[in-house]
Amino acid sequence: MDHLATTLTQLFVILLAAKIGDEVFKRIGQPVLIGEILGGVVVGPAVLGIYQITPETELFAEIGVVLLLFQVGVETRIGDLLRVGGTAAAVGVLGVVLPLGAGLALGSALGYPIEVSVLLGAALTATSVGITARVLGELGALASHAGRVILGAAVIDDVLAMLILAFATGLAAGDVSTGQLATLVGLAAAFIGIVLVVGTRVLRSRPAILTVPEFAATPFLPGMILMLGLAALAAVIGLAAIIGAFLAGMVVGESSERHALEVEVAPVAAFFTPFFFGFIGAQVDLTALADPLTIALLAALTALAVATKFIGAFLGSIRLGRQRAALIGWGMIPRGEVGIVIAGLGLGAGAISGQLYSVVVGMAVLTTLLVPPLMGPLVRVAEPESSGQR
Amino acid sequence: MDHLATTLTQLFVILLAAKIGDEVFKRIGQPVLIGEILGGVVVGPAVLGIYQITPETELFAEIGVVLLLFQVGVETRIGDLLRVGGTAAAVGVLGVVLPLGAGLALGSALGYPIEVSVLLGAALTATSVGITARVLGELGALASHAGRVILGAAVIDDVLAMLILAFATGLAAGDVSTGQLATLVGLAAAFIGIVLVVGTRVLRSRPAILTVPEFAATPFLPGMILMLGLAALAAVIGLAAIIGAFLAGMVVGESSERHALEVEVAPVAAFFTPFFFGFIGAQVDLTALADPLTIALLAALTALAVATKFIGAFLGSIRLGRQRAALIGWGMIPRGEVGIVIAGLGLGAGAISGQLYSVVVGMAVLTTLLVPPLMGPLVRVAEPESSGQR
Repeated sequence: MDHLATTLTQLFVILLAAKIGDEVFKRIGQPVLIGEILGGVVVGPAVLGIYQITPETELFAEIGVVLLLFQVGVETRIGDLLRVGGTAAAVGVLGVVLPLGAGLALGSALGYPIEVSVLLGAALTATSVGITARVLGELGALASHAGRVILGAAVIDDVLAMLILAFATGLAAGDVSTGQLATLVGLAAAFIGIVLVVGTRVLRSRPAILTVPEFAATPFLPGMILMLGLAALAAVIGLAAIIGAFLAGMVVGESSERHALEVEVAPVAAFFTPFFFGFIGAQVDLTALADPLTIALLAALTALAVATKFIGAFLGSIRLGRQRAALIGWGMIPRGEVGIVIAGLGLGAGAISGQLYSVVVGMAVLTTLLVPPLMGPLVRVAEPESSGQR
Repeated sequence: MDHLATTLTQLFVILLAAKIGDEVFKRIGQPVLIGEILGGVVVGPAVLGIYQITPETELFAEIGVVLLLFQVGVETRIGDLLRVGGTAAAVGVLGVVLPLGAGLALGSALGYPIEVSVLLGAALTATSVGITARVLGELGALASHAGRVILGAAVIDDVLAMLILAFATGLAAGDVSTGQLATLVGLAAAFIGIVLVVGTRVLRSRPAILTVPEFAATPFLPGMILMLGLAALAAVIGLAAIIGAFLAGMVVGESSERHALEVEVAPVAAFFTPFFFGFIGAQVDLTALADPLTIALLAALTALAVATKFIGAFLGSIRLGRQRAALIGWGMIPRGEVGIVIAGLGLGAGAISGQLYSVVVGMAVLTTLLVPPLMGPLVRVAEPESSGQR
């Protein structure tokens, strides 16, 4: 079978499995996201072994989460996000400090070198914006007060996780310069600030390219170009590509043709996002779980991940009341792709072992599977006016 | 720069360049397709060298042409195509026999071994359905009589080209069994027949999966899954992936929600197809043209490609009148991706030289650039009722 035939087969299998999982979970009334992930587990290396992780399938998964964040960005008003900025910052920072401390403490207790402990801490810090946004979207709660706090905080903790990662890889390479870190912090701040201020102004001035026929209907293709460009730029300066995609979405979402744009982005995102969730499932390595020590470590790490993120985020948002704070704390728990990416970088650099990689991936998947079933009841209690919108 | 950042940058650059080329050509009133290809030339290895051909960018190009053919399939009625079946078959077969003979004769005259001559003939045979369909679509002439003949004939000559390719690679490997060739012919016929008959029946019986909420609106995601599945299956049995995609499009196009489906497929195709046209442009190697002998060979091959395909297709459709036959003959000329793929396979197998590869690629690009400017006038003369629809 030639290379193209193999790749097309992989893409077919993962999309089919994700949609079957989606249908099954819809019928039994469970979050379809979990069905899509389990579809990936079944066709992935863990069970059937038809779907393999290759640079091509990884690219499709990455574009899937990039499009998901772009779509969420389009549906997010910049003003709404800024209005909850203070709370989101508190949730983001507290939700990073506690898991990071816990990861460091666990790593030291297990006798890992300091750079491995920092990497473990970094893998515990970042909430998966993609997964949380999808769950909130399914519940129609993306625009609710708690939904906006979660979104803003998740972006903030992604940025912080990238900074910690830069620090950890610097440690692993044996050189950390505060100058480099300061540069990265400055770059991240400048990137986000410039994109939001300049991008929105340019768009509101309605440049000629947006009023040309075909482009005039909606800024769809310019939006997709901006999405790829900012995702690439974010990745180049050392941030997550999804942060660039989210910013691009917010910028084009300020366009007056927002609704028409949403209609065009929806099928592209619907086609791509299952590749992302299936990919998460395909990361699961069941053979690693044969070892009781590994299971114990996984249980400990997952318990730490859940407890520290919930407490940090709960404390950060307690002024919104206990019910909203509980919803926010719970919604911040899924680690998803960011933890997996950080662990993968550590594995690739030889800093962490295959066992520790499996444990971190297992933690990321478990925290992701844990959250959706409770989100519905929590939204109904904390944000009654927004539940049941979809 | 890490691998993901590089790939995202490549995708950003090619999409931006293609859309700039598109805009420029729209403003000067020329076919935008040429603008997109020239955008690929500019950012590709020939000029700026920012966009490189990698497995990932190649996959995006391939998915681009797969989606383009799927979209054309959705807009094509199976009945319409069968009604022009006789003429399309005559155009397809004559349009293959003449270029193949010319390629064989040229190869022998230049003293190439027989397997290289067959490969050269094979590269001359296959019209690029993708490019012709896009040009016809821009002119609103896809559903015209001549448009349907071109589409049917282009699919037929793609299948024939794949059979010749199988024969040529068998020759190059030193073993050609008529049994294997017969198997491939049988597989191709069975594949096309089974998909059209079974697929359409299943769809018309409205299975449960298509009436589940969310899926009920349009068969969009099932359609995309079918597209990937049949494209993969076509590639696995040795046909072009685009043939599977075109069949999948025709099958789901028989659905009663065809119009809603077209609305959802359009943005996905609009996002992906520029990657295909940009990729074609990026194949251009200007340094190969420094050698006068290469230029002479390119001119000879291109002249042969234009003349033999035009005459074959013209003779095959002469009973529709000279004006329609001229439009059909001209519309069949672009070789595009199929010639490039065949030459690439020959290069990879060591059967053809780098010089001959550059010449075949140059011929494919030149025949593609030559055709669009004359198509508008030809459509206005031969199919006056359909011109200017879009």
